[in-house]
Amino acid sequence: MILQRSYPVEPWSVSETTLDLSLLAQSESLFALSNGHIGLRGNLDEGEPYGIPGTYLNGFYEKRPLPYAEAAYGFPETDQTLINVTDGKLIRLLVDDAPLDVRYGDLHDHHRRLDLRTGLLERTVDWTSTAQTRVRIHSRRLVSFSQRAIAAVEYVVEPVERAARITLQSELVANEQQPRLSRDPRVAAVLEHPLEAVTHDRDDFSIVLLHRTRASKLLMGAGMGHIVEAPGRTETEVVVSQDWARLTIACTLQPGEQLRVVKLIGYGWSSLRSETAVRDQVAGALSGARLTGWDGLVREQRAYLDEFWDTADVAVDGNPELQQAVRFGLFHVLQSGARTERRAIPSKGLTGPGYDGHTFWDTEMFVLPLLTYTYPKAAADALRWRHSTLDRARRRATELHLAGAAFPWRTIRGDECSGYWPAGTAAFHVNAGIAAAVVRYASATGDTGFEQEVGLELLVEIARLFASLGHYDRNGGWHIDGVTGPDEYSAIADDNLYTNLMASRALVAAAEMSQRHPAIASGLDVTPEEVSDWRKAAAAVSVPYDDVLGVHQQSEGFTRHAEWDFVASRDTYPLLLHAPYFDLYRKQVVKQADLMLAMHWCGDHFTAEQKAHNVDYYERRTVRDSSLSACTQAVLAAEVGHLDLAYDYAYEAALIDLHDLQKNTRDGLHMASLAGAWLALVAGFGGFRDHGGMPSFDPALPEGLTRMRFSIRWQNLRLTVDVHPDEVTYAIDANARSGLLLRHAGEEITVTAGAPITRPLRKPTPLLQRPMQPLGRAPISAHRATGSVPEE
Amino acid sequence: MILQRSYPVEPWSVSETTLDLSLLAQSESLFALSNGHIGLRGNLDEGEPYGIPGTYLNGFYEKRPLPYAEAAYGFPETDQTLINVTDGKLIRLLVDDAPLDVRYGDLHDHHRRLDLRTGLLERTVDWTSTAQTRVRIHSRRLVSFSQRAIAAVEYVVEPVERAARITLQSELVANEQQPRLSRDPRVAAVLEHPLEAVTHDRDDFSIVLLHRTRASKLLMGAGMGHIVEAPGRTETEVVVSQDWARLTIACTLQPGEQLRVVKLIGYGWSSLRSETAVRDQVAGALSGARLTGWDGLVREQRAYLDEFWDTADVAVDGNPELQQAVRFGLFHVLQSGARTERRAIPSKGLTGPGYDGHTFWDTEMFVLPLLTYTYPKAAADALRWRHSTLDRARRRATELHLAGAAFPWRTIRGDECSGYWPAGTAAFHVNAGIAAAVVRYASATGDTGFEQEVGLELLVEIARLFASLGHYDRNGGWHIDGVTGPDEYSAIADDNLYTNLMASRALVAAAEMSQRHPAIASGLDVTPEEVSDWRKAAAAVSVPYDDVLGVHQQSEGFTRHAEWDFVASRDTYPLLLHAPYFDLYRKQVVKQADLMLAMHWCGDHFTAEQKAHNVDYYERRTVRDSSLSACTQAVLAAEVGHLDLAYDYAYEAALIDLHDLQKNTRDGLHMASLAGAWLALVAGFGGFRDHGGMPSFDPALPEGLTRMRFSIRWQNLRLTVDVHPDEVTYAIDANARSGLLLRHAGEEITVTAGAPITRPLRKPTPLLQRPMQPLGRAPISAHRATGSVPEE
Repeated sequence: MILQRSYPVEPWSVSETTLDLSLLAQSESLFALSNGHIGLRGNLDEGEPYGIPGTYLNGFYEKRPLPYAEAAYGFPETDQTLINVTDGKLIRLLVDDAPLDVRYGDLHDHHRRLDLRTGLLERTVDWTSTAQTRVRIHSRRLVSFSQRAIAAVEYVVEPVERAARITLQSELVANEQQPRLSRDPRVAAVLEHPLEAVTHDRDDFSIVLLHRTRASKLLMGAGMGHIVEAPGRTETEVVVSQDWARLTIACTLQPGEQLRVVKLIGYGWSSLRSETAVRDQVAGALSGARLTGWDGLVREQRAYLDEFWDTADVAVDGNPELQQAVRFGLFHVLQSGARTERRAIPSKGLTGPGYDGHTFWDTEMFVLPLLTYTYPKAAADALRWRHSTLDRARRRATELHLAGAAFPWRTIRGDECSGYWPAGTAAFHVNAGIAAAVVRYASATGDTGFEQEVGLELLVEIARLFASLGHYDRNGGWHIDGVTGPDEYSAIADDNLYTNLMASRALVAAAEMSQRHPAIASGLDVTPEEVSDWRKAAAAVSVPYDDVLGVHQQSEGFTRHAEWDFVASRDTYPLLLHAPYFDLYRKQVVKQADLMLAMHWCGDHFTAEQKAHNVDYYERRTVRDSSLSACTQAVLAAEVGHLDLAYDYAYEAALIDLHDLQKNTRDGLHMASLAGAWLALVAGFGGFRDHGGMPSFDPALPEGLTRMRFSIRWQNLRLTVDVHPDEVTYAIDANARSGLLLRHAGEEITVTAGAPITRPLRKPTPLLQRPMQPLGRAPISAHRATGSVPEE
Repeated sequence: MILQRSYPVEPWSVSETTLDLSLLAQSESLFALSNGHIGLRGNLDEGEPYGIPGTYLNGFYEKRPLPYAEAAYGFPETDQTLINVTDGKLIRLLVDDAPLDVRYGDLHDHHRRLDLRTGLLERTVDWTSTAQTRVRIHSRRLVSFSQRAIAAVEYVVEPVERAARITLQSELVANEQQPRLSRDPRVAAVLEHPLEAVTHDRDDFSIVLLHRTRASKLLMGAGMGHIVEAPGRTETEVVVSQDWARLTIACTLQPGEQLRVVKLIGYGWSSLRSETAVRDQVAGALSGARLTGWDGLVREQRAYLDEFWDTADVAVDGNPELQQAVRFGLFHVLQSGARTERRAIPSKGLTGPGYDGHTFWDTEMFVLPLLTYTYPKAAADALRWRHSTLDRARRRATELHLAGAAFPWRTIRGDECSGYWPAGTAAFHVNAGIAAAVVRYASATGDTGFEQEVGLELLVEIARLFASLGHYDRNGGWHIDGVTGPDEYSAIADDNLYTNLMASRALVAAAEMSQRHPAIASGLDVTPEEVSDWRKAAAAVSVPYDDVLGVHQQSEGFTRHAEWDFVASRDTYPLLLHAPYFDLYRKQVVKQADLMLAMHWCGDHFTAEQKAHNVDYYERRTVRDSSLSACTQAVLAAEVGHLDLAYDYAYEAALIDLHDLQKNTRDGLHMASLAGAWLALVAGFGGFRDHGGMPSFDPALPEGLTRMRFSIRWQNLRLTVDVHPDEVTYAIDANARSGLLLRHAGEEITVTAGAPITRPLRKPTPLLQRPMQPLGRAPISAHRATGSVPEE
């Protein structure tokens, strides 16, 4: 059966043409607006019906105890959970005496559209109340990129056919009623009534409510101000109480007359500053926004996005659905990281409560590559946030009897919040991912200040961690035992290949950067002996290989383990909901790209033949129960010449949320997969790699894509790569003052301003046939994607 | 510093000569009385002060949810916790107007004595109230072996110097106030007010309170009846309410006059039977006990124990403290198993709330060997209990995607209650231990009915479990991956040697017993192909060995792992309270005998040289953070000729509770270690093994022991082994109608009635030097044990 798409294919927007209440929560995530600091789910203006009401401030969390049936040393005791803060986006409407509620009366038209170039969420409603009064509403909403503390709503209502008494209530509501979320452990726990009222204020221009969290003792302010335009007399009333505030505007409108209200919403929070300071901060932000005005905010938003798209856009010809999805993903990744400014980028951005609002390794390994090459400032900010948590990571390392710093598997503030250590604390590769992100950002930007202030110290502490984590065997081989790699279905393994290679590179990077900044290194007590120890361990790292099968082992002994019975487990994906960890861990079943991820980011360690054989072996055992997998499988499938398979994976990575492939888009978007779609295209079909600090490309398009054009920033240059089926053109901006050395299909070429270089493409010939996936886990075909969702 | 012993050394009793309140909880455990059905901690008659008040009924538990920070498939959701039931042992006393409380007034003398031959706990108190009235009290307490539902207290009070008004209050109290137990995860959770009142009754002879648990819905009755002897007029009053009942007896006594009260206490519980039935059951038990009378109960108790000691006693000359400790341990192991009758034997018996009252693998592997060879009826009962839980174990196996039956790691009723699967569910060796206990009991007793009713089905289902758990590698080797062996510091390992060998023996045993009882096997759907598969897997089992080091590996890859830094961890034992599981798991540090346990129970798999080298290697890495370790280390140390080391371990195993070596005797006694002390002597210094279903011996005494005499039951015969420094004499009872074939130091001999055989002892010469233990973990010297506790 071919289902009708929920969201029509458009190049620069995502639209919802009817209101399907069963998709409400999913749409709230898709239509979420954020600047990285404030996040507003795409809840309806009037607040109800909702899937999950959501207003978030980055880093604003409540603490709660982590329970254990059998606690043990080093188990984290406190969780941090992103909470739904005071909702400022609420605008309720009374039409005559009927409240606007799309579940009652007649909804003639309901249209929403997220415009990826303006950054606005627009909504049109044509509704007749049960009392037969008809109104049209047009609202637009933004979370300002240019004014970090500000969101705004323009709300216009107009009676149709006959006059109506219109009562508009604009509100701030703290401690909103929340739905009971699912029992799935991956979904956030509901925290009911997380906010304690501190004080509330109003002046002529604004209303501010101050609240504090009970346990984490964070202080927040939410404020609103209004600009009202009405044709005649209006009655206005303001009520402010502890947990809510309401501005009421009542008027009578004739058909064709409009009431227009611009609502400015301001937020601020702090763990340190006083009540007065936070109140003033919110009120001040509102004053600034009032000065800018709605049109000004809209202009600033467009300008900000124009600059972003100028570098970040990936033009994909031949598959409009993929084109839309990739831009949708880029827009949301930007939203998640744009103005975080020393806060984390959560795995779901600020689009929903999933994973408690935690940040994982996804940020450094999937989101930051995209931001590094398109919007490097945000990548630097995210790493500066990591750096700001170094003391907590050092304490954690000490607690674990390790040296250096052990960054958390999941966190908001920097403390380990993982309540299941085999898939948390044991995943030390998160640290190697941070190191890789530091190295990548530093080589791509040449930002020496960053290296000196942030990068070197991160690398040194991570190198110390791994040096203390590894050990030498009696033959001089260096091992990291008992850790969990990216594949969470093979936890607590010896010599996870990904971890080992990434750790060895982190050690070398720390050594190299220490030697580049000897004075700072010396200030960090780095000695030549320590540097030499790092290099020695890195050189001796164990890389498990199965001689008989001729493939690398994901971890020591992996290929000796039992095979998973995919026939028996058909239709029981994700496996973790149907099988015990015990059974998953001991068998050759892979949740997500692990060895393949190593072959992407440490690709220069492997020969082409090894890659082909490894892809063939692990494709057959990878069930892709994680949203972090498809994009990496796309990159490797492309590299070994399975372009069609890569195309399918790229499509799946990009469409993860628009098609709700994981059935949990309701809880928030999958930022890593959305960023991974960029990787699938740019590293997959563009063949982009950054091994050794030099950009290299080896493009090849799959059947079905007729052109792909993308840009990356490298050392203040913007390189544009325009890939056609048979050739590729490399160009840098006309105003560039230096050339750019890059590698095309192994050949070094220098691109200079005004002199694009065109090269023919290699035609990749795969060494092996396209591999099968586990039963029931072949990817969706990208070719079917022409305006319809896949068959079900 | 040499501390004064708390409990003087006596051959057949344990005495407390002064009341040290800091040792109160420990004494309560040591002085606990039980018949396996009812357990009374050694609380003072008057109830206060207490360490932990405790009255337990075997199998009577409450359910509570098991919490997880991150739940997952197959994690058990419900715990079962032994609860403190209605306390019937309370007898409070008012002397004139002062309540007897040892914390007030003057305590001239306080003496308690547990008599291991009579089974009575006696108490003498000489006390003067703050109002200067002096009384002497003598009480005796028993939990009847012969009348399973009955406990009794004889309480005699007598004024000294001048007359006194004596008011005695005999009580039943439900939902006693409980202390907050420690946060140590190994200690039971407190359940406050676990009992809901159902009804209460009194008649001329007894008072019965009926209660039900809230969640597990178990019904219990507690009753009391009294026999009162007083010289003059007494006032008697009875008050009965929901949660308590009180008989008050008031009289005035002259110096030398005595009030004597015999309190009979009856218990019954059921998950099925009606209130009326349980009430009648308790009242009936009280009537029977009244008929028997106090003296009759005392006589029955003595007769029961005489029979037990007749076989079970181990006479040890040369170390009176060890002698006392071994008898103390035997007594408590008997108490834990005597009358369980299709209930489990908990790891702490019914002596305290530790481990929530759960049963572990300890029962089959440590307690049942002792019971099998000294009190086989109790061993059969314990295995019949396992059999009664087969359906739950089958369901658990199915849930885990395995065949056969997966018995729980910890439980009361048979359901898995382990809240941390790497040290719970993954420890599948519990099943192999059950199979070994079946085989041991069957060969030792020749109880064919047991095989047919219970044994074969257990073996078949366990064989099916292991057959589904293992797999073949490409070279035909058979492996069990990802399991946890006895050593909980090396969890989730491939090819744990102990598990593999024990599993292979379980497979062979199931095959053999199936062929012995073909009709029953066929009724269990056992086919010749299945039997052949079991034998094939068993023959192909992988036994990891390190060729370079010349030692077996506890599990695959173990000897390649990093060494533990014992210098750094000195004084931080047990390590699990000071180091993360992550670090423990990946290093060569062993919590408790694992490979050594394999060398004990599967000793015929190893050569003498291998044993010597293995002991040497693992001794240096075993920290003995479990009470299950010392006894096995004793057995192996003795076998490889380190008799002095074995002596120290045997001493430690035996003294674990009398010296509170684990600092948690307060929570209950360590039944496995107490039973293990018997193993240390009989299997260690006696060299007793039962490989292949034939008893074999190879005795050797350590320096310091001048003689050791023990008996074992074998096929209805009682064999007595009398070991002297240079020779051993084997004898069977004079009335035996057949001879007994055994092996002495490799030589087969047949002992016949009236013809004891004496043989000289081999003088063992150790191949290697006595090994060192990890820093700070050498055992206590048994030689220091001459009336004083070890240096601290």
